[in-house]
Parts: sequence; structure tokens; C-alpha cells
Amino acid sequence: MSKPLSFQQVILCFQNYWAEHGCLIWQPYSEKVGAGTANPATTLRVLGPEPWNVCYVEPSYRPDDGRYAENPNRMQMHTQLQVILKPDPGNPQELYLGSLEAIGIDRRKHDIRFVEDNWESPALGSWGLGWQVWCDGQEISQFTYFQQAGGQALDPVPVELTYGLERIVLVLQDKRSVWDIDWGAGRTYADVLKTPEVEHCTYDFESADVQRLTEMYKLFEAEARACLSHEPPLVIPAHDYVLRCSHTFNVLDARGAVGVTERAGYFAKMRDLSRQVSGAYLAQRQREEYPFLKSGEGRVESGESRPTSRPLGVQFPTSDTHTMFLFEIGVEELPAGDLTAAITQLRELAPKMLDEARLEHGEIRVYGTPRRLAVLVQDLAPRQKSVERQVKGPPAKAAFDSLGAPTKAAEGFARGQGVAVADLQVQDLEGGKYVVAIKREEGQPAAQVLAERLPNLIAALKFDKTMRWNHTNVAFSRPIRWLIALLGDVVIPFEYAGVSGGRTTLGARSNGSPEIALQSATDYMDALRDQRIIADVDERRAVIQKQIAQLAESVGGEISEMPGLLDEVTNMVEQPTALLGKFEEKFLALPRDVLVTVMRKHQQYFPVQKNGQLLPYFVAVRNGGRRHLDWVTHGNQEVLRARFADAEFFFQHDTAKRLDDFLLRLRTLTFHEKLGSVLDKAQRIEKLTSHIAEMLGLSEQEAAIASRAAHLCKADLATQMVVELTSLQGVMGREYALRQGEPREAAQAIFEHYLPRYASDQLPASLPGVVVGLADRLDSLVGLFAAGLAPTGSADPFALRRAALGIVQVLVENAAPFSLRRAIEAAAEVQPASVLSNRDAILNDVHAFIVGRSRTLLLDQGYRHDLVDAALAEQGDVPYRARVAVQALTRWAARPDWNDILSHYARCVRITREFAESFPLDIPLDPEPMTHALHDAYQTCAAQVSLHSTVDNFFNAFAPIAPTIAKFFVDVLVMAQDQAVRQTRLALLQRIAALPKGIVDLSKVEGF
Amino acid sequence: MSKPLSFQQVILCFQNYWAEHGCLIWQPYSEKVGAGTANPATTLRVLGPEPWNVCYVEPSYRPDDGRYAENPNRMQMHTQLQVILKPDPGNPQELYLGSLEAIGIDRRKHDIRFVEDNWESPALGSWGLGWQVWCDGQEISQFTYFQQAGGQALDPVPVELTYGLERIVLVLQDKRSVWDIDWGAGRTYADVLKTPEVEHCTYDFESADVQRLTEMYKLFEAEARACLSHEPPLVIPAHDYVLRCSHTFNVLDARGAVGVTERAGYFAKMRDLSRQVSGAYLAQRQREEYPFLKSGEGRVESGESRPTSRPLGVQFPTSDTHTMFLFEIGVEELPAGDLTAAITQLRELAPKMLDEARLEHGEIRVYGTPRRLAVLVQDLAPRQKSVERQVKGPPAKAAFDSLGAPTKAAEGFARGQGVAVADLQVQDLEGGKYVVAIKREEGQPAAQVLAERLPNLIAALKFDKTMRWNHTNVAFSRPIRWLIALLGDVVIPFEYAGVSGGRTTLGARSNGSPEIALQSATDYMDALRDQRIIADVDERRAVIQKQIAQLAESVGGEISEMPGLLDEVTNMVEQPTALLGKFEEKFLALPRDVLVTVMRKHQQYFPVQKNGQLLPYFVAVRNGGRRHLDWVTHGNQEVLRARFADAEFFFQHDTAKRLDDFLLRLRTLTFHEKLGSVLDKAQRIEKLTSHIAEMLGLSEQEAAIASRAAHLCKADLATQMVVELTSLQGVMGREYALRQGEPREAAQAIFEHYLPRYASDQLPASLPGVVVGLADRLDSLVGLFAAGLAPTGSADPFALRRAALGIVQVLVENAAPFSLRRAIEAAAEVQPASVLSNRDAILNDVHAFIVGRSRTLLLDQGYRHDLVDAALAEQGDVPYRARVAVQALTRWAARPDWNDILSHYARCVRITREFAESFPLDIPLDPEPMTHALHDAYQTCAAQVSLHSTVDNFFNAFAPIAPTIAKFFVDVLVMAQDQAVRQTRLALLQRIAALPKGIVDLSKVEGF
Repeated sequence: MSKPLSFQQVILCFQNYWAEHGCLIWQPYSEKVGAGTANPATTLRVLGPEPWNVCYVEPSYRPDDGRYAENPNRMQMHTQLQVILKPDPGNPQELYLGSLEAIGIDRRKHDIRFVEDNWESPALGSWGLGWQVWCDGQEISQFTYFQQAGGQALDPVPVELTYGLERIVLVLQDKRSVWDIDWGAGRTYADVLKTPEVEHCTYDFESADVQRLTEMYKLFEAEARACLSHEPPLVIPAHDYVLRCSHTFNVLDARGAVGVTERAGYFAKMRDLSRQVSGAYLAQRQREEYPFLKSGEGRVESGESRPTSRPLGVQFPTSDTHTMFLFEIGVEELPAGDLTAAITQLRELAPKMLDEARLEHGEIRVYGTPRRLAVLVQDLAPRQKSVERQVKGPPAKAAFDSLGAPTKAAEGFARGQGVAVADLQVQDLEGGKYVVAIKREEGQPAAQVLAERLPNLIAALKFDKTMRWNHTNVAFSRPIRWLIALLGDVVIPFEYAGVSGGRTTLGARSNGSPEIALQSATDYMDALRDQRIIADVDERRAVIQKQIAQLAESVGGEISEMPGLLDEVTNMVEQPTALLGKFEEKFLALPRDVLVTVMRKHQQYFPVQKNGQLLPYFVAVRNGGRRHLDWVTHGNQEVLRARFADAEFFFQHDTAKRLDDFLLRLRTLTFHEKLGSVLDKAQRIEKLTSHIAEMLGLSEQEAAIASRAAHLCKADLATQMVVELTSLQGVMGREYALRQGEPREAAQAIFEHYLPRYASDQLPASLPGVVVGLADRLDSLVGLFAAGLAPTGSADPFALRRAALGIVQVLVENAAPFSLRRAIEAAAEVQPASVLSNRDAILNDVHAFIVGRSRTLLLDQGYRHDLVDAALAEQGDVPYRARVAVQALTRWAARPDWNDILSHYARCVRITREFAESFPLDIPLDPEPMTHALHDAYQTCAAQVSLHSTVDNFFNAFAPIAPTIAKFFVDVLVMAQDQAVRQTRLALLQRIAALPKGIVDLSKVEGF
Repeated sequence: MSKPLSFQQVILCFQNYWAEHGCLIWQPYSEKVGAGTANPATTLRVLGPEPWNVCYVEPSYRPDDGRYAENPNRMQMHTQLQVILKPDPGNPQELYLGSLEAIGIDRRKHDIRFVEDNWESPALGSWGLGWQVWCDGQEISQFTYFQQAGGQALDPVPVELTYGLERIVLVLQDKRSVWDIDWGAGRTYADVLKTPEVEHCTYDFESADVQRLTEMYKLFEAEARACLSHEPPLVIPAHDYVLRCSHTFNVLDARGAVGVTERAGYFAKMRDLSRQVSGAYLAQRQREEYPFLKSGEGRVESGESRPTSRPLGVQFPTSDTHTMFLFEIGVEELPAGDLTAAITQLRELAPKMLDEARLEHGEIRVYGTPRRLAVLVQDLAPRQKSVERQVKGPPAKAAFDSLGAPTKAAEGFARGQGVAVADLQVQDLEGGKYVVAIKREEGQPAAQVLAERLPNLIAALKFDKTMRWNHTNVAFSRPIRWLIALLGDVVIPFEYAGVSGGRTTLGARSNGSPEIALQSATDYMDALRDQRIIADVDERRAVIQKQIAQLAESVGGEISEMPGLLDEVTNMVEQPTALLGKFEEKFLALPRDVLVTVMRKHQQYFPVQKNGQLLPYFVAVRNGGRRHLDWVTHGNQEVLRARFADAEFFFQHDTAKRLDDFLLRLRTLTFHEKLGSVLDKAQRIEKLTSHIAEMLGLSEQEAAIASRAAHLCKADLATQMVVELTSLQGVMGREYALRQGEPREAAQAIFEHYLPRYASDQLPASLPGVVVGLADRLDSLVGLFAAGLAPTGSADPFALRRAALGIVQVLVENAAPFSLRRAIEAAAEVQPASVLSNRDAILNDVHAFIVGRSRTLLLDQGYRHDLVDAALAEQGDVPYRARVAVQALTRWAARPDWNDILSHYARCVRITREFAESFPLDIPLDPEPMTHALHDAYQTCAAQVSLHSTVDNFFNAFAPIAPTIAKFFVDVLVMAQDQAVRQTRLALLQRIAALPKGIVDLSKVEGF
């Protein structure tokens, strides 16, 4: 084996490769950027209709990623190689793999995988779909079909390839750490960059002056805006200042000086600027009349040719025998979720299509791997079934004259239907005689029918997120690169998304994606098997499950149940081969949650455990065979080692301090400029917690626990582990609390106060957890509403809906007799006075907002909206009671006598509704005995009902008196001539109408 | 001929070339820099003892150079390729030329020349010596031996190669404009960079907000200082901020917001920061124990081997016959001035060395070209002449005892001198007998003598500026690369600066510098002639003169007298071949001064004229033969076209406005923060001008002219032509004034007010010119002294010495009876009151400073310092009178009776000096007739002398009474007993002593 290329040779080699493939070679930018994307050669040139192919190196600065050069592959500066291919050359994945081969990475030796990645840059107003490219578990590149940049939709869609050069060279040179990389000229990467790395980290994390950087940011922003206001706008100078804003923000952020809410503000401003810059650039190119459109030069040449569009034949092949039909959609790697969605839909849509097409068929099977969706149909009929249809025409007497000769009406109808007048028939229809035309539709050849319908079948597939990639602007989960529709041995000619159907499928990536021409549909499964591709999802899942179980067993362990992960992994490979990796035992000292999160979420590895304890092993599933498996395993182990080393670095740094120390750091983390720091917020939570503990009736001991938990609940936000792995917030808080000897219950409450974190998440189990969680959410809601940041129809950047929903869920779950109003007022007490100038309106808004979430929750649970509204109108302030009320009301509304009960009550309400005054009740005045009877009934009922009664209490008391009400209205004229009598009768009805006050507002119920 | 490489191919090709020669490939920097030098890969890595070889591209931003993309090769951004070779590999010029050949520039086809360039960056505290490399007149690279960086002396010395990539590709692709360059991938340079270029120009010149940029600068500076104060200092973050300071300053400067004096302040601050950064970096490397010293890797390998050090032989070759001696110092291209200096010195030192070495010789001739210094000696003796020397010992009587036997003293002496006691002789010396040892020094072989003395001969050569280049740290004008010392056919072994003497010389660069081994010294001239090298300076000059005259004649013109240029050109070539170039006639519309300045100063071309009018031709002298001369001519024409286009661009922009418009722009050009803008200064000059016009007695009409000239005199500083070609200040002012119809005399005064610009420059011829010039200089002196910026011993950043000297020269030249004191007070009147809080002291300082310049001038003119001081003490306030006084005094001091005159006068002074009071003069009291006689003489003299008398007036009146004074002192006892008599006598002497008051202070004269 020859010596692998040095770092600098790799760069030159890539540049030569892409230059040979038609790319312009460009230079790194003259401002600090977070990624090559920010270079105007990408961020601007991708805009508009002009072609653009470019390749350049970009040293990329991400202060947050700094590790003081103590991590094997995380640095605040890493080197990207950026390639833009616009428009899509048709085979960008092949070109990309070719570039890896050019530097010596053999796709047969490594597990090179395209792992779903939806890229988004809020700061740039940009997004795209594509993949991370993994080499043996290591992310080495990002591959993105750029859909939008600077708020502008992109057409044509550019392909963006971003190579992480250090990581690639790490793999290539088989080094354990980037610092050991051979740079060239006898120097290592550390020789050249280690000291600057440490210095930048020190500057970014410890030394940068927050005040001065904040001022710089403002100046940069002002200057960017000035450039944009110039006539015409100065695009590049403006962009340069936007980049400076961005980097300055990143340093401030690394410095811990940007709070969650403040961050949103920064992003909004930067996005706005980016949009303006993009708009100005587009306008500029338009003024210049898109000069690059004039020349056809500079396009990337496709290294390989693919079947392209050809004229659709007019003659469709026919056959007389039932044959097998294969329909395959060849795609670039689908996301796991999209693959499941596509298979599910095809299982429904494919039979439906055939049935609608009147094509008889045998068994239909649907297959799917990341690169292909396939439908195999047994015994497809060669032609549609023919059908006769009759079309009703004019009445017979209008169609034929008295002599029986056809009238103009008959002739017109016949002409319109395309039949001879002589062929018209007369039939009895709908109780009369009508002229009828009999039309026979001959069954068309299956090929013709399918050619027409297959495009619709593809178009009917729906995905959560879709992308465009070529001039057809068709949207799909990922690009479609080949199509097969084979009816027996006959190709069905059709085209979709610029691709023509053919008979050639592609083999597995690990085999170099060879083209395989199928003689016939029946060859398909054999062809895949030859490639060792398992096309059936269930079969693949079973194979993997077996493999991973065996490997776990081989070290005396087992795979813990991870059904979601198994499905995900199943959808990520065509050729599953599980491998067993090992990691150093010392890492087991890290918290289990950390290890599992890293393995599962970041690497899609299966953790191995024994008796519930993790073992120092993992199981990964490669895409490919057993050849070179040792090499792939080695690579994956190295990746995990680096990730664990990262986690260990955080853990050691974190546990060297106490949570109270981190708490103090929250002082510099702004929550919101009007609401102070996160420390201020934590202190508000602490105050509010004692209030809420009282409201919920906690014991003294529980309240003390809650108070301690509240004190520490946000501290972990300042720990490095949580800064890095946000999903571990609360988890690490609990872990670190336990390690420093906090009471177990307090530690648990720290964890629980974040619950529920998502829709189906667990709820807090302990009262202290409940209390702190409520305090946190109430503080956010009241504070942010007061700061003018209530969610709007389209935007809820602080996830206040989820916060309100969490409050409701927790209160309902805990059957808490808890007044939102009182809690909101308590939360208002702890806010800075400055934000509450319009106190009542704000508190009402918050209250209505939470009640609104309660409504949504109940509706989602299937309750009738009118009943929900009826209950909430009276009991919305206590969500648990509202839920109980809705449940009861639902039962009552299901009763056969419900309409009577409701209508009798409604009559009382309706007749009294117009009177604003409350009438005096003087029963003895009324001579009618029925009034007396109703009054008695009312008294009986009222004695059982109060403001705090339940719906059942109320109806149990009210239902019995309903008949009396009915009788009253029959016997008595309420609006008697005598005023006193009239008023007494009205007064009685007013009292009855008021009975459900505080319990339910029946006027909201349908049928009222 | 194959298609030339594209821009991007050139870059890749260079990178591959330098990588193959051991360089690390590095990337452009993440901050905007003015040059690749600012990248830490140069500015820091060149420091300290470690080796470092690197190559990288650097897009370099120089706002001042922006031309809105309207110039063929001047842009605010150009692309450098930077190479650092540290230590010097020994053959960097060859490596450099090899790199040009790698991209397809054939040194045989082009005139590639190394033109002296002393590089200095005040902002970085850095300097070095080397060359611009010209290709057919176009500067394509800078080649520097870096001597100091960030205020640190560099050891080892790095070689810095800076390629101007656009210019190189321009030559390579034979394009007229960089905008037409083929970049690669089907795009031109304009496609990619034209619009950004225009935008940057617009931003830098028109849009950048001065206030905001000034604030940014302050923040950057503060942050840089904070990084430096960190413990340990954060070198790279600090450096980044220094770069931001630098670029921000450059934009402010382009924006016209930085005044001359303010600039000095900025530079001082940036230099200070750079020094601190460099110091911190060095300390850091030291702490890290210079890791690169541990490995020997990464050195550039020399493509070619050169004779290196070899042991000095102990046996020196001998011969019996007189032979020719050749001594050649082979150098990298010497600056023209250094070549002249070296030849002059060798002509003196070489004979002196041979004489001192007692080597007989025939004719000595000294030759010199940019690459070689040679001494050819005819008939050099094979050996030194032998000599006898006698050494005096002890007195004979101490050396021999009474018996004549030698004493211990004799023995000791003999031993000490290395002779036998028996060989001692006794001689009569200095009036006594002494023992004498006779020592014979045998003549050594010439080779031995020369081997010892040649190193000293080289070391004795002095240059204005010298440089070091290798480990020997020898200093010379440029590196010495080979040495020849051939005595006949024998090599004289010696070594200097790491180079051993040999017999191999190098041929001409245009022939690829072939190695030529000389059999014998006599082959030398033939070898050079074979190479078409003209080694004799006078011969070369004559050849050139003839060639250029013929070429001028061929188009009916002539070369205007430019003796300095002819010498310069003669010293820049070994193989002179003149060529005739043409330029477009339209450029003749530009002012002659502009065309001549560009041709002569920038390109070293000879302008061609006819009857005093320029013709559209120029004559250049290439280094090389007639082959490919058309190509070289073409290249030179293109270069001049671009330069003229630049000038035309300025001229058109400038003449589109009136000078008054430019005047207003001076409002934003700060002169000094305490003294306001340049416009403020111009307005002060205008006010002061009327004062001074009155003092100098100008007519009303002259005064009006002066006033108008004063009004406009600084306007051209804001014109683009002057911003670009500073040497044309005043020249353009005159030109533009004439074009806008100002009176001819006013226009002339605008030009003249800058005179004299340098030591030997012309003086203003018109009175208005004199007046405005005086006003300008007086304003600067008074203002800047008041602002605390008087020159110090070592620093005179505002050239105030020259300003004061100019005042004196002009006043003397114009015989102006002009009081400096009054003028200074007038200048003080127009200064901002704020700066003159200590008015009297400041005015006295300024006065003393100007008088001091007057003194210097007189001393430089050869006057005796005592006489100068005597005249200045009384007449310093009026420089012209002081000069006249010194002249007269000099004549008087040369008279034979001078000592008498002076001593008689001195006696009067000395006897009265001790009395502070002024005595009453009452002659009749004195009985001595001699007193009466002296009094009569005094009265006669006093009647002819006043405060305004000249020295001649004074002495003509005084000399006749001197004898009377002498007689008085003989006859009369001054200190008589009688007080009244005594006082009368003293009073008389006091009056005589006071006679030269206001004329001359004779007490300063030697012999007083």
C-alpha cells in the first residue's frame, strides 16, 4: 500500500479533480465564516437562473466547537472543501464518490453511506435536503440539494458538496486524531494549527470582551444596512458585514452572552439582512441580464451517461398472456421515515391504480430500500377489461317523431356521443322512456394504460418534506435517478421528472452501483439477490434483528429494546451486515444516558447491555458485505471513541464544579433583554415554586425539596454537556445533582420539571417535579407575553404553546384543583415591574391562551367541541375540573332524555335572557299552583347544587325537575298581565337558568 | 503553441511546483489583508530561528488602488501568490525562475529583470531588501530578503516571493486587461470579479461611514490590546484584530478621512501593536522550545548545487611568472546606486590592497554589471616583495655586560623577536646606542597573500543599505552567490559569506545563467563577450547612448537629456539592447510632466521628443539580445498603455471638476486633530499670505495673485492624479489652474510654493510663489510645534527641518529683509487659540529652530562656525542679513590686521564686562588727552554705525579707530583712583563695546 496523500495533497487532488470536471477554482473568503456556504461563491451564486460550478477550500470558524485542541476531531476551525454544481449534473453522487476515489478512498473498502440530513441555516434564511455522508460511521461530508438561500427559492437547484477535509484525511491516513495528520512538507496538523486553536478557544470562551463585541455587532449591522440602502445596493460589501455580524454573534454566543430569546432576535436580524443581500444580488444579476446564461460553458460534464428522455412511442406493445409487472423507482438515498411512508402508500395506491385501470392482476408486493421503491405484480393482464357504458339521452318522444324517425335532438345526441343514430336504443329509465347510447370502451393494452398512469402513481406519493432537483421542478423526497416499468420483458415507455422508464437498475453502492439490464421483470429479485440486496423491509429487519442479537450474545450481552432504532437502521441499508465494536471500559464511568444518547442518536448504534448494565460494546449495521468488515469496524470504533472522548471532556469539566457554580454563570446568559438573565429566571422560578407548592398543598418536606430543585433546575444549562447535547438538559441536572449529594427527590424533580418534553413524553411523577415545572412554564408565559412575545398565528419561537399545553397536561394528570388565574397572578408578582404596565390585559391574555390549549387538548382527545366549550366556559380556570366536566357532559349528552333536559333548561334561559334586571321572587303572590310546584322543585335542586358542584351533581339534581319545568310552561303563561306575578315567574326562571353557573354553560351546547 | 494556462491552472501549477520543492501549502487568510505578508504564515512564521517553507494564495485588498474596474490592471483586490523560504535555500532566484517556466513563461523569450526594491511596511514594522521582478517592463513579482518583521530582526533571513498572479497571467495569456483573463471553467476574470470590484470601490471611496469605521477601529485596537494583555498573550486573536485595524484604516484613508499627521499617529499605533504581537509570538515559540528546530525536515531542496565551503588548503600554489589576476564577486542583482558605489570603491581599494600586500602589478581595471563586480589585474607578481625590518631593543649597555657578553635583557629580546642572540646588532638610534634585531620577511606567494586579503577587500565595500541572507550573517548589498579568484590558471582558495572562491562564473540570465568554468583569468573577458555581456560600465553606457539616440532618430526625434536615467539604466543591464516602443497619440493630450514622470520614474523609459514636444514613442533598454525583441517591445508597450490609461483616468476625473471643488474635499482630510483639516490649513495659508505679502512689499497686483494662489494651493492634494503620483503635487495644481483659466502667475505660484522640494531643487522665481511657500511653511512650523510635534533628535516625521530650511533658502535667495519673529507672530495669529496656551515659549522655540536651520545652511556652505554664530547672534532674525554678515565677517577675518582689530575691541569688552551698570560719560573730567582722543575717534565711528548697519559698515568705521584704542590702553590707566575719572573711562569703553550691537557679536569669534 502506498503512502496515503498528505493533507495538502488531498486538497490539490480534489481541486484538480473538480477543475477537470468543469469547476471554477475559487479561494477561501476574506472574512471569518462558519462554513463554505457563507462564501459569496455559494451563498450568492446559487441564486438565480445562471449556471455555476465552483470548488474551493474554506477554513471555517465555529467558536462553539472549540475544545482547546483536546479533542481528536472537534475544533473551532476546520477546513471545508466546498463544491457547487448548478444545475444538478444528473449524477452528483457518482461524481462525489469519484472524487473520494481520486484521493484514495475506495468505496469497496469502506462503508460509505448517505444519511438523511435536512440542512437549515436560520442566520442565512437557507435550507436544503440531502445527506451527511458517513465513512465507517464518521461524517465526512454534507451533500445538499439547496432549495432556498437568503429567503429565495432556488431554480435551478444547486448541488452543494461540503467535505470535512480533516475528517477525510483522518480516515485516509488512519490517524486517531486530526492533530496527528500529516499536513505535508514534513509537518503535522498540530505543528501548524494547534497553538492557534488553543488561543482561539481561550479568546472565544474566556477573553472576548462582551461589551466591545456587542458594539462591533451593532456597527457591522448598521454598515450592512447602509450598503443595502445605497443605490444601487452594494451587495458584496453588505454581505461582508453580514458575515462579520454572524461571526461576532458566534463569539458572543460561545462566550455565553446570548440568551435563548435574545438569540431569536439576533437570528431574525441576520436573516433579514441575508434576505436583503440575496434580493439585491438577484436584482443586480437581472440588471446585468444574467450574463452566464449567454454561454453554455462551464457546465459539469457528467462522467457517466444515464438514460435520458426519448420520444414516447405511439405504438404500445401488446401481449396475450398474463405476465409479471415490475415497477421500480430508483432514487438517491431516501430518509428512513420517507421510505416507510412510500412503502405504505404504494401498498395502497398500486392496487388502487390497477383496479381503476381495470387491469386484472395477481399478488402485489411492495419492496423498498434507501435507493429503490419497487412494486412487483404477478400475472398482470395484457389488456384492460373492456366495458360497455350507456349514456342517457333525451326522452324517447322528443327523439323520434310521430313516424318513428329520429329528430334533430336524437341526431345531435348521437353525434355528441359518437355513435350512429341507428344504434341508439330506447330504454325505460327513471319511470320514463329515454333514448340511450351504448358505448363500448375497448380495453387498451396494459402497457398503454400503465404508461399513462405510472407518472400519476409517482406523483401521488406524499412526503413530509420534498425537494426539487432538476429543470422539471418535480418534487420528491430525494432525486429520482432511474425508472423501470417492465411488463414481462417489455419496457413500458413513460417519463417522469425528466427520467425515462427503462430496464436498467443499479446494483449496490458497495459494488460500485453497476448497471444491470433486466431481461424481464422476473429477473428482478434474482438480480437484487446477486447484489446481496434485501429488498423486502420485513425480511431485512428480521435479518438485522437476528444479526445484532447474535453479536450481542457473543459477548454475553443483549440489545436493549429499541424498536424505533431498528426500523431506522433497517431503512438505512440495502445490504445489512452487523458488526460488533468495542470501546474503552473507562467510558462506562460516564452516565448511561450520555452513552446511550451518543450511540443511538448520533451514531445509530445499538448499545449492548447485560442485566441492565451497559457493556463496553456496540453493534452497528453497515451497508455492504463482510469483506473489509474489520476495517469498517475499526473506523466506527474510532468515531465512537472520539465522541465519547468529547463527552468525557465535558463530563470532567462539568463535574469539576458544583451546580451552584454553573448557576452563577447563568448571570451572563440572557433570557430576554426585558426579563433579565437565565439566573433571574431561575430565581423567579424559585419564588414561584413556594407559591405553587402551597396551591397544590405540598407537605413541608415536599415543599423544601421543590424549593431546592427550583434553585438548581436551570444550572445544567451552563454545563458543557448540555450546551453540546441539549437533549440531555434535566438529565444532566439530575446526574450532577446526585453526584454532589443533593437529595434524590430534588435531583429527580430537576429532571422532571422539563416533562413533558414532547407530545407523547412521560409526565412528572413527583409533586416537586410538577411544581417546579409549572413554575418554569408559568414564568415563561407571563414574562414573554408581557414582553410582547406572545405567539402569533404562524410563529411561536419560544414554544409557548407547548409550555401551556404542558401545564394543562400536568394539572389534569395530577387531578389538581388548581386555579390558573391565581397561578398567573402569582407569576406576575415575580416579573420585573417594568414589563407589566398593562397588567390586566396581559394576565387575561395568558389565561385565555392556556385555556385555549386546554380546549385543543380536549378536542384532540375526541370530545365534542360544543361540550368542550360548555365546560370550559365555566370551569376553564381549573383544567382538571374542566376535563371531568367534559367527560360527564359527554355521558349526559349521550342519554336518550338529553334533548328534553337540554330544551327544558334552554326555555328557562331563552325567556329570561332579554331582561337585564334580576326580578324579585315572591311566590306567594302567584295564584298558579304550578308555579309553586316549580318553585319547590327548584329548591330541591338548588339545595344539591353549588358553584363547586360537578356536572354530574348538577344533572343528577336537575334532570328530575326537568319534567316539572315542561309542565310549568304548558300550564302557566309566564308573561302574565299582572306585573308582580309576571316578575315572580320570571324571577323563578332566572334562578333556574342560573343553577349551572360555575359548572357548565349549556348555552354553548348544540341544540340549545 | 499550446493554449496558455488559465488563471486557476496557474495557481494549481505554482502550488504543485512549490509543494514539490518542499513547501507547505497554506490557505488565504480569514481576514482582509493588504498583502500575503500579513498572513500569519508569513508575518509570524518568519520570526525566530525555526525553518519554514510555505506557499499560498492571498487575495489582497488595497482600497486605494481601486479604479472601479476601469483600469486594465489596477484593482482594489488583486491575487498574490506568496512563498516563504526560510532559511535561504541558496538559489532562490533560480527556483523562482523555474516556477515561471513551470507555468510557461520562458526566460529566453521575455525580458525578466530584477529591479531594486526596498520594501518597507510602516504598519507592520517590517522591512527587507530585494527586487521587483519585471517581465517586459511589467512588475510581476516582489522578491525580498526579509530583514525585519514586527520590529524584530530576522535570523535566519527568509526569502519572500510575492507573485502578482493577475499580472503574470496577463503576460502569459497576452491579454490587454486583467478583465479579459481566462479564469478557467469558461469564465473570464470579469465574469467572476468585475461587479464586486466596482462595489468595493464605491464602498471604499463613497459610502463607508467614517464615524462608524473610526469607532470600529477603536474597538479593534482595544480588543487587540486586551488579547496582548492576556496571560499568556493570545497571539493569533491579537493579530487578527491588528489586521482589522489595518484594513479599516485603509478604507478610512481611501475615503479621504485621514490627514497626513493623523496618518502618522495611526501608523505608530499599528506598528506598536505589530511589535507586541511579534514579540508575543517569539516568546510563545521560545516557551514551546522551537519545535521545528527538532526536525530537519521541510527544507527547500536546492534544485542546483553551487560550490560550497571546502577546507582551505594549507599549501598555496606558487609560480614564478607574472600573470593576470581575476577577482569576481558574483551577486544577485545589485541596485544601480550600489553598483556605482562598489566600482568606485574597488578602484580605490584594489590597488591599495595590492600595494599594502607588496604585490607588484600592471594595469588594474574594475568592471561591473548588476550581477558581477570584477577586478582584472595585469602582470601580478607571483610573490610579495620581501622586506627587512629592524626592531629596536634595549640600550646597548644594558644588553651587553662589560665583557661584551649578552645579558639576560639581550637574550630576552632576541627570544621575543625570534632571532639568535648572535644576530643582534648595535646601532646608533635617537642619539644613543641600542641593540637592534634585523627581521627579514620573506615575500609570500601571491595566492596566499590574496587568500588572506580578499575577504577583507569584500568586507571593506560599503553600501547605504545592506542585507543579510545566510547563516554567516555577512552583510552586503545583495547576496553573494559565487566568487572567483584566479591567478593565471590557479584558483586562490578562500571563502566569504559561506561561498568558496572557484573558477566558475555564471553567464547571462537571458541564456539561463549557464555555468562557465574559466581555464584561466585571461579567459574572462572572452567568456563574457561570448555571453554578449558588456562588463565595462563606460562602454555599456556608450553603447546604450548610441542605441537610444539611433532609435529616437529613426522616428525623427531625440532623447531629451536625462543623465541620471542613463546611468541608472546602464547599471540595470548586462546585455543592453534598446527597443523603440510606441504609445497611442491620444495620451499626448496629458500634461507632459505626467507622461515624463510615468515613463522615467516608473518605467525607466527614455521619452522621445522633437523640438521640445513629446512624440508618441519611448525607448526602453532590455537586458538580453535582439531575439524575441518584438515580443518584449509588445509587452513594454502594454505596460505603458496601462499606466497611461491610469493617468488618463485620473486626469479625466480631475478635470471634470474645478479646483474649488477639490478644495471642499479637503474638509474631510485631517491635517492634524488639533489643527483641523487640510482645508483649515489652506485657509490659514491664505490669511497669512496677505501678511507676508505686505512684509515683503508686494505690489497690489502681486498680492492679489498671491492671494488667489494661496486659496487654491492645496486643492490638488484631493485630485486623483496627486493622490496617485504624489511627486506631481503643485505640478498638477498649476496644470489644473491653467486649464480652468486662472491667471498664469497664480498657477505658477501654486507650483512654486512647494519649492524647494529637495536639497538641490530650484527655488521659487516669482514673489507670489515665495510668499505662499513661506506662509505654508510658517503655518506648519508654528502649528505643529504648538501641537507638541516639534522634531526630536531622531524623528522628524513631518519634515519640519526641511520646511525651516526652505524658509531660510528662499529668504536668502530673495535678499529679503524679512523678520522671522514678525512672521512667526503672524503665523501664530491664525492658529487655533486652543493650541497656543504657552504662546511665548512656542514662538521662541520655532524662532530658534529656524535660526538653527540657517546656521546649518551656513555651515554647509563652508563658513566658520564662530563667524556664523557671531553673525546669527545679532542678525539671525533676518536670514538674508545674517548671510551677508557672515560673508563680510569672513572677508574681514581673513585680513592680516584682523587679530589686532579683534583684540583691541575685545579689550574694551573684557574690561567693562564685569560691570552691570552703565556709567556716566563726562569726558571733560578726564585730564588725560588720550581719553579725549579716543572719545573723538569713538564719535567719528559711532556716527557711521547704527543697529541696521552691515558688518562692512561697522568694520569700515571701526578699523580706523582700533589703533587709537590700542594707544589708549598703553597711555591710560583705566582704573584710575578718582572714581569719576574711572567711570568716565569705563563709560567710554562701554560705548565702544556696544558699537556692533545688532550687527555682530564678536565675543563669539575665536581669538576674542
